[in-house]
Amino acid sequence: MIVSVNPVTFSDVQTAAQRIAPYAHRTPVITSASLDRAAGAKLFFKCENFQRVGAFKFRGACNAIFSLSESEARRGVLTHSSGNHGAAVALNARLRGIPAIVVMPENSVAVKRAAVADYGARIVSCDATLAARDAVSAKILAETGATLIHSYDNDVIIAGQGTAALELMQEVPQLDLVLAPVGGGGLLSGTALAVHGVSSKARIIAAEPAGADDAFRSLRDGRIHSQTDPQTIADGLRTALSERTFAVIREHVSEILLVEDEATINAMRYVWERMKIVIEASAAVPVAAILAGRVDVRNLRVGVILSGGNVDLDHLPWSA
Amino acid sequence: MIVSVNPVTFSDVQTAAQRIAPYAHRTPVITSASLDRAAGAKLFFKCENFQRVGAFKFRGACNAIFSLSESEARRGVLTHSSGNHGAAVALNARLRGIPAIVVMPENSVAVKRAAVADYGARIVSCDATLAARDAVSAKILAETGATLIHSYDNDVIIAGQGTAALELMQEVPQLDLVLAPVGGGGLLSGTALAVHGVSSKARIIAAEPAGADDAFRSLRDGRIHSQTDPQTIADGLRTALSERTFAVIREHVSEILLVEDEATINAMRYVWERMKIVIEASAAVPVAAILAGRVDVRNLRVGVILSGGNVDLDHLPWSA
Repeated sequence: MIVSVNPVTFSDVQTAAQRIAPYAHRTPVITSASLDRAAGAKLFFKCENFQRVGAFKFRGACNAIFSLSESEARRGVLTHSSGNHGAAVALNARLRGIPAIVVMPENSVAVKRAAVADYGARIVSCDATLAARDAVSAKILAETGATLIHSYDNDVIIAGQGTAALELMQEVPQLDLVLAPVGGGGLLSGTALAVHGVSSKARIIAAEPAGADDAFRSLRDGRIHSQTDPQTIADGLRTALSERTFAVIREHVSEILLVEDEATINAMRYVWERMKIVIEASAAVPVAAILAGRVDVRNLRVGVILSGGNVDLDHLPWSA
Repeated sequence: MIVSVNPVTFSDVQTAAQRIAPYAHRTPVITSASLDRAAGAKLFFKCENFQRVGAFKFRGACNAIFSLSESEARRGVLTHSSGNHGAAVALNARLRGIPAIVVMPENSVAVKRAAVADYGARIVSCDATLAARDAVSAKILAETGATLIHSYDNDVIIAGQGTAALELMQEVPQLDLVLAPVGGGGLLSGTALAVHGVSSKARIIAAEPAGADDAFRSLRDGRIHSQTDPQTIADGLRTALSERTFAVIREHVSEILLVEDEATINAMRYVWERMKIVIEASAAVPVAAILAGRVDVRNLRVGVILSGGNVDLDHLPWSA
């Protein structure tokens, strides 16, 4: 893995875009007259739900894994995300032809294990505590010499995630504002670097579940708050910031908007019904911020990163 | 309305494409590596779920309504579809600035009435029989001089529906095969004219619910069978062919494939999960024909018309 002494920059995002181009989809930007009317703005949706593995996470994992030297790559990669990042690491390891290990708690749901296993990664189970996870991971890393691919506290991941916004900025001129969801901050910090790399005038605003408001509090107080007991259906946004992502966010992000789950569910459903695309709850949070009037977008040109589309069709939030 | 003495032709589809261009979306053609792998073919999906009103029906209604002379237009239009065609007539009448009346049975569901009313059409209720519907419609037509816009037994409708396949053929060269669903045959006959207008070599194959197999039996026996008691969740495909659509289908369509509802539901869900787009059951029928192996598509380039994406998110077929 590339270890940067210097903080991650726009130039890293540009490099990432070239590196992942042979593997990642250049996802479409779509617009919707219904949503524009509802928002009173011109909205441009960057559809990472159409990305490989169904989420932007493919970009960061791709950049991380294809950044490895040959000798690093041969020893494999390890991660401990059971969600979209785990699937993204597994697929990119397969694309590069190297081993991947995903450490997952014993109580993780079968469908997530199956998704990771389908991409050919080895799953190692551990007790459902952070301590157990870290101990198991450290042991495997020491034994194998594999590289840990953290899901957001990682410069190459951040640079990779920023490529979605870079494509958006290249395709849609003169955006006033770009919205992205925030969890651990990998997508948000990459987005921030990309947006301000292209346009110093565009504002970057994040949306966060009210029940997992650590980033909001962190930005307000100028120091990282941990995420103790997140309560939100947006399961991609339950993690806390790291110093690495927080540094970028403090510099570039204007504001973090809090969104109740009810508004997120309504927005998710509205996008399915009107735009006929499947987005996951985490992706609906910025849409909800707009539709619920948490931000004044009237007459603006607004980019929205739709982060992913992986949902359990047997358990939709509006039929719970 | 234009009344053709001659049967509808490819040239009518080309004219329709020009006429509707200012109003209709040119919908995207999308591909999916997952679906290609599952099918062993290269599939090109024409996404009419992204069309205005969420279905290809916008095209036919647009062509019909914008074909009217000024004096015809002033007297308004009438239809008696409560589904996507009703909404399409209502919206196009609004776009042209003329009155629209939609005759609907008293027992039609509230959400469908609301959709039509939202587009500004007047709803006239009638008893839930064909005789009552026709009597009420005839009376209004006589009183107002409005033009009846039949949902498929109508040359300008057929020509309009064909514009989706025309765009597909223009965008994707050398298709071996194009699949479309068949109900009343408006989409299928328009598709057939467009496909064979561009390529005499491409085959046109239809997919039909096994529980509403009138078109299959009609093509087999060389005469129109009526549709007595259709049993299918594909609610857009419960109607029977007309002489007008049957004539085109006999000339151009190679085969009609029957698909059980279970396969349709599986295909619908598969498309939502893998392609992250919302399609309705009627649109899933041709996908199901491919995925269930009803047609040999191995190594072929196959176009599929995804006819629409209007679903009731509170009642999904796999959670019934």
